Amino acid sequence: MTEPKSKNIVWSQSEVDVQSRRAVLGHGPATVWFTGLSGSGKSTLAKAVEVSLVKRGVRAFVLDGDNVRHGLNTDLGFSPADRTENIRRVGEVCRLFYDAGLVVLTAFISPYKQDRCRVRSRHPSGGFIEVFVDCPVEVCERRDVKGLYRKARAGEITDFSGVSAPYEIPSEPELVVNTAESDLATCASEVLACLEERSVITAV
Amino acid sequence: MTEPKSKNIVWSQSEVDVQSRRAVLGHGPATVWFTGLSGSGKSTLAKAVEVSLVKRGVRAFVLDGDNVRHGLNTDLGFSPADRTENIRRVGEVCRLFYDAGLVVLTAFISPYKQDRCRVRSRHPSGGFIEVFVDCPVEVCERRDVKGLYRKARAGEITDFSGVSAPYEIPSEPELVVNTAESDLATCASEVLACLEERSVITAV
Repeated sequence: MTEPKSKNIVWSQSEVDVQSRRAVLGHGPATVWFTGLSGSGKSTLAKAVEVSLVKRGVRAFVLDGDNVRHGLNTDLGFSPADRTENIRRVGEVCRLFYDAGLVVLTAFISPYKQDRCRVRSRHPSGGFIEVFVDCPVEVCERRDVKGLYRKARAGEITDFSGVSAPYEIPSEPELVVNTAESDLATCASEVLACLEERSVITAV
Repeated sequence: MTEPKSKNIVWSQSEVDVQSRRAVLGHGPATVWFTGLSGSGKSTLAKAVEVSLVKRGVRAFVLDGDNVRHGLNTDLGFSPADRTENIRRVGEVCRLFYDAGLVVLTAFISPYKQDRCRVRSRHPSGGFIEVFVDCPVEVCERRDVKGLYRKARAGEITDFSGVSAPYEIPSEPELVVNTAESDLATCASEVLACLEERSVITAV
């Protein structure tokens, strides 16, 4: 972390600590970070996991890449610097949700390893769970739900991860799910199992 | 709202709506926005209300001005433009917490009326509750918990709200609490009563 630009600011300690929140809520906080190409199924998977978690009484919430660009990060585009700032801010929001005791699920391409590492470093050990949503670019392109690959190939969109901009595959994610080979329900249950193993939630 | 800088982004609708979250949680979402001079008691009051709410089983969380400047808004200072961006981002984070079903309590000087109005406009009607933490600048200065007024008077801090920068008093806040005339417990119970009246929480 670099020094904050503002001087004369003092950390204000919450009167409610993480353990108290965990006790009240019955589950731990976590940031579940889905990363993968556009069209790999991050949002779909995150939303499916969210529904399952909420049904189980877990306070879960999806932070979606596109939605955040409509609000918090409305001033950012897709240049490398803007992508980095996009992920930095989202990471800080995740940390706030984490401190509030929630399980936050993010759906951001987040192509740069360094950006993801920085978000990880802003969480207590074990609090950041990286899920690589693995899907070959050919399959993503065939799906092309939003028609973006077509535009990227036509040169109408530049800086498109996996086509005209890099996507750096996670080297040590907590979980890899393959949405080309497994269906949505299977992938979602793999994520839930991972959260159980890590004692974020209790097994049902 | 201005147009997002990013094109080709699509709003992703959550599978879990506000009503479902309310039903599960047993309380409504709200953004309770404390505004007032430095030293007026915003953080102290927000934290006291948070403790009471959590005891009552309400998912509440304080967003503190100084803390956010250590994280999300570490790149921002106290110039008018930076203050505006500070509040804009925090407002968007509030909206995310709101969507997640929480009662978020903020403690930001937020001196500009326009900035606060913009945050209000980003919430559904009734979702934004502005609490003016009223306290004469002389009293705040006498308290001077962080020693900031002394520095501001000595010219060591510029752009200090109420001294060398404006503080615009809310014209139609949902609640005014006076921390110079009432003690902490009284002010906190006034906030809780306001949340009950507005059906955010149920009376105990």
